[in-house]
Amino acid sequence: MKDASRQKTTRDAILDATDRLLTKYGYKKMTIDDLAQEVGIGKGSVYLHFTSKEEIALSHIDRIIERLKENLRAIAAKPTSVEERLSEMLIERVLYRFDSVQHYSRSIDEMLAYVRPQLLVRRKRYFAEEARIFSVVIAEGQNASDLVAGDPEDIALTLLSATNSLLPYSLIAVDLDDRGEILERTKKTAEILIKGLSA
Amino acid sequence: MKDASRQKTTRDAILDATDRLLTKYGYKKMTIDDLAQEVGIGKGSVYLHFTSKEEIALSHIDRIIERLKENLRAIAAKPTSVEERLSEMLIERVLYRFDSVQHYSRSIDEMLAYVRPQLLVRRKRYFAEEARIFSVVIAEGQNASDLVAGDPEDIALTLLSATNSLLPYSLIAVDLDDRGEILERTKKTAEILIKGLSA
Repeated sequence: MKDASRQKTTRDAILDATDRLLTKYGYKKMTIDDLAQEVGIGKGSVYLHFTSKEEIALSHIDRIIERLKENLRAIAAKPTSVEERLSEMLIERVLYRFDSVQHYSRSIDEMLAYVRPQLLVRRKRYFAEEARIFSVVIAEGQNASDLVAGDPEDIALTLLSATNSLLPYSLIAVDLDDRGEILERTKKTAEILIKGLSA
Repeated sequence: MKDASRQKTTRDAILDATDRLLTKYGYKKMTIDDLAQEVGIGKGSVYLHFTSKEEIALSHIDRIIERLKENLRAIAAKPTSVEERLSEMLIERVLYRFDSVQHYSRSIDEMLAYVRPQLLVRRKRYFAEEARIFSVVIAEGQNASDLVAGDPEDIALTLLSATNSLLPYSLIAVDLDDRGEILERTKKTAEILIKGLSA
């Protein structure tokens, strides 16, 4: 137990350091040596957890998505209406990602140049996992005859697809300066979509 | 007149050759020499029209968008209902782009690695131009009290945003093999959006 907990802590510490160094140096300039120094461990210890800088960057994004999914599950379990929860979940999936990367927005394009193909494959998995959480709420709305019929997971994927262009990956760095604009566009999109889904 | 027409023809011939060579070689391997040879003109003649390979690739995309806008205007002028036209326009904006690049889908990622920042800036302009065409139909629907109130151009931008993640730029090459899946997702998205917009 003690070892597992220490291992998790070191892994998280490396990912925390990644976040800080992406802001400070950007992806290209950041080295495994910098990361080890920032955490206060040896370079070899970093390699116990990750095989490459690419894997570190992708794991850093994985962690953002894991945390997002926890938040989505918490919203899904709220006692508010299905419509309110779906709207809040759509806004959360856009804004949580925004807030997680906004401080290193200038280096996102640079990082993408290196990890785009691997990230695109991962995104398919992220979306499938998010869709499962949304589908539970959609099915609840269908059972109460509040929402139109149809495969809940497929409807969920349509909701995700309709907000995916607002995710940081699709934005130009300069767009990432304007949280208010992203929030407004997401709210408007959610409103139209949820009205369109109502029975 | 004769000169202007000949100039347009050469420019178009270069862009047609670009389309063929992107399929044959991909962006990186394609040279200005290859293009000149493919058109049957001198390298210097290519430079009379374009300053760089990047500009050629971006002009090639500009031309796709110009043709798409013509198609959108034609649909907007049809005698069908506002809802049918909006749905058809949303499907056209996704599928026309798909069909325009599908034959060189394997080299899109490679081309993006070189022109992504410039393309992101251009996309803002493309979307603004498309939104103007959509907004005319939306305003028509609002005047007939068929659609909800709101700034037509802003509603148009929300419709575009909700289908932008289905555009080739956002797809991984392997997704570009499945036209049927993209068409289905676009139809489902359009259906929910247009129902959500109805008054």
